[in-house]
Amino acid sequence: MKYSYRIVAKDRLAKHAHMETVHGSIETPVFMNVGTAGVIKGAVSTDDLRAIGTQVELSNTYHLHVRPGDGLIRAFGGLHRFMNWDRPILTDSGGFQVFSLAGLRRIKEEGVHFHSHVDGRKIFMGPEESMRIQSNLGSTIAMAFDECPPALAERDYVEASVARTTRWLERCRAEMARLNSLEDTLNREQLLFGINQGAVYEDIRIAHARELAAMDLDGYAIGGLAVGETHEQMYHILDVTVPHLPEDKPVYLMGVGTPANILEAVERGVDFFDCVYPTRNGRHGHVYTGAGKLNLFNKQYELDARPIEEGCGCPACRSYSRAYIRHLLKAGEMLGMRLCVLHNLWFYNTMMREIRDAIDSGTYAEYKAKKLAGMGAARPDGN
Amino acid sequence: MKYSYRIVAKDRLAKHAHMETVHGSIETPVFMNVGTAGVIKGAVSTDDLRAIGTQVELSNTYHLHVRPGDGLIRAFGGLHRFMNWDRPILTDSGGFQVFSLAGLRRIKEEGVHFHSHVDGRKIFMGPEESMRIQSNLGSTIAMAFDECPPALAERDYVEASVARTTRWLERCRAEMARLNSLEDTLNREQLLFGINQGAVYEDIRIAHARELAAMDLDGYAIGGLAVGETHEQMYHILDVTVPHLPEDKPVYLMGVGTPANILEAVERGVDFFDCVYPTRNGRHGHVYTGAGKLNLFNKQYELDARPIEEGCGCPACRSYSRAYIRHLLKAGEMLGMRLCVLHNLWFYNTMMREIRDAIDSGTYAEYKAKKLAGMGAARPDGN
Repeated sequence: MKYSYRIVAKDRLAKHAHMETVHGSIETPVFMNVGTAGVIKGAVSTDDLRAIGTQVELSNTYHLHVRPGDGLIRAFGGLHRFMNWDRPILTDSGGFQVFSLAGLRRIKEEGVHFHSHVDGRKIFMGPEESMRIQSNLGSTIAMAFDECPPALAERDYVEASVARTTRWLERCRAEMARLNSLEDTLNREQLLFGINQGAVYEDIRIAHARELAAMDLDGYAIGGLAVGETHEQMYHILDVTVPHLPEDKPVYLMGVGTPANILEAVERGVDFFDCVYPTRNGRHGHVYTGAGKLNLFNKQYELDARPIEEGCGCPACRSYSRAYIRHLLKAGEMLGMRLCVLHNLWFYNTMMREIRDAIDSGTYAEYKAKKLAGMGAARPDGN
Repeated sequence: MKYSYRIVAKDRLAKHAHMETVHGSIETPVFMNVGTAGVIKGAVSTDDLRAIGTQVELSNTYHLHVRPGDGLIRAFGGLHRFMNWDRPILTDSGGFQVFSLAGLRRIKEEGVHFHSHVDGRKIFMGPEESMRIQSNLGSTIAMAFDECPPALAERDYVEASVARTTRWLERCRAEMARLNSLEDTLNREQLLFGINQGAVYEDIRIAHARELAAMDLDGYAIGGLAVGETHEQMYHILDVTVPHLPEDKPVYLMGVGTPANILEAVERGVDFFDCVYPTRNGRHGHVYTGAGKLNLFNKQYELDARPIEEGCGCPACRSYSRAYIRHLLKAGEMLGMRLCVLHNLWFYNTMMREIRDAIDSGTYAEYKAKKLAGMGAARPDGN
């Protein structure tokens, strides 16, 4: 068995699915916890991840390729063993980082020439290279190598880019099939998710979704959103695109997002998410609660003996007050960042469980309305 | 019961004692884990401390007075509740930091006028202020306010300084007796340790030790060592001074030191230690093993799949390789520092347990010789 994906419950378009992979099961909707360089930023260990209910860890192909190198990680038996995480891992393709982080770059039909952001050395990455790196990492789910055009790119550019992304996907699929057939490949059951693009052009999005659906992939991602368009545009693209993707396969909205974004996207049929918000915000002392975000640097928490959120079972709230965490943040003590990151990831992971429960009981619309209202309906876009 | 101190076993001058305090028991010799600002640096939580066998946490009166303020901590019910640690805490007097960290300062009979290293504001601290701050913190053991003269100070200066330190100790004792008699004092059983000074002048050290012993204090510290003198001078001062302190009371060698320093001092009758080496070294990727220190930044560990130390049960060694931790350190990921700090504190805490076991079985000399040889007898001074 390469994997299985079974819908446990549906509530209108929202679905709760059970996925079995070679690295264990995933209940969706799921928020993947982002560990760019093979670690969640903020001194969070994989022991911590187990304690906060993480289902899937996400790492970045580009970062790991540049440092410490995917060859090194392969020599260690893959990313799972390197970072001591035995549950599912999703690796992105490196494409997004190549386009957003790398220095001077040239996109050609064969792939992208660019310079490392660490030491400036020249690197070439195309569909085959991305697949080989991800095969070396041995992740559970590999992402196809795509181009992510700017949200506001011209129509002509987007059309040409999406056509190339489809050609690249064919090459990814062929290369992964070849790699998975080799005896010494680390994870011969590695899954491949294709990525829908098309910026905010709904006809391009729909046509591309249909093309991808016809390819019978292991899963389908929607990329190129949350990169500059409005939230309304994003929701609209989901409204028109998701219905053209197979319902009996996982749907992944890349790089999204705020709790409100996730609540809206689940309602539109999405089941995988990832975002740096909870970790990045945590490192800056911004923490999520059911009543909205708090900035623990604020003076008002100086004498606040309450946990970040009453009733929260995370490692920060079980043991420490807002005042103590604020003291740590003000003193530049790393533990302050760590506690905020742990709380935020717990908040996201817990919200996903609540979402699944609400779908199971057919009360998703009520749950979503109540959650949004609690977090402050006046600020639906706040991250 | 204010406290009890009972010698469990002796091996020549080395003693294993059992101490009972209002915050639980302490087995000595003990290494106190240093949490300057009410937290161990390196994203280490009190949950972590429990996991690595910490017996006593040490915090700095000066740092906590400056930020977040001892009044705030008192309002939270004391440092134990503020940082969520229910076992013994020792607070230093603030004296050492006043002399080493603070800006322009003036020492007078009543105390020291100085400027905060955080915001430059003027602060006055004398014996009474130090006792009041430590009483607000509610630590298990408070340290007397002393002056720590430079190791190589002139004899005249040291004599005058030690005489003043003794006068300050009398004032500390009176103020603590007053504070402990008040109904609303957080910890009315707070203990007071006096501090022996005298730089490297053995007659001054001895005379001062006798004066302190006559005062029948809760415990006796030896200060002003490991501040510039040689290790041989330090061991010599211990040789001549410790015999003049009561054997049936705890003896604390302040700010010491390397594993070798501790092994030598235990042999001379010391039972409390503290030092920033394991935490500071850990944050720089320097880790302790039975075969000496390793610098995990070194290229040689790039492909090293072994834990920091084979057989070590610390949270780092149980789960992660040298290569992975090196990757984290190179990538600037905080988890790398955290794992090294946890390992180093575990190493120190474990060595102290081995030391107690060796004293119990009357094999301390053999244990010490073997441990020193393993760590590299050629580098006894290496920290």
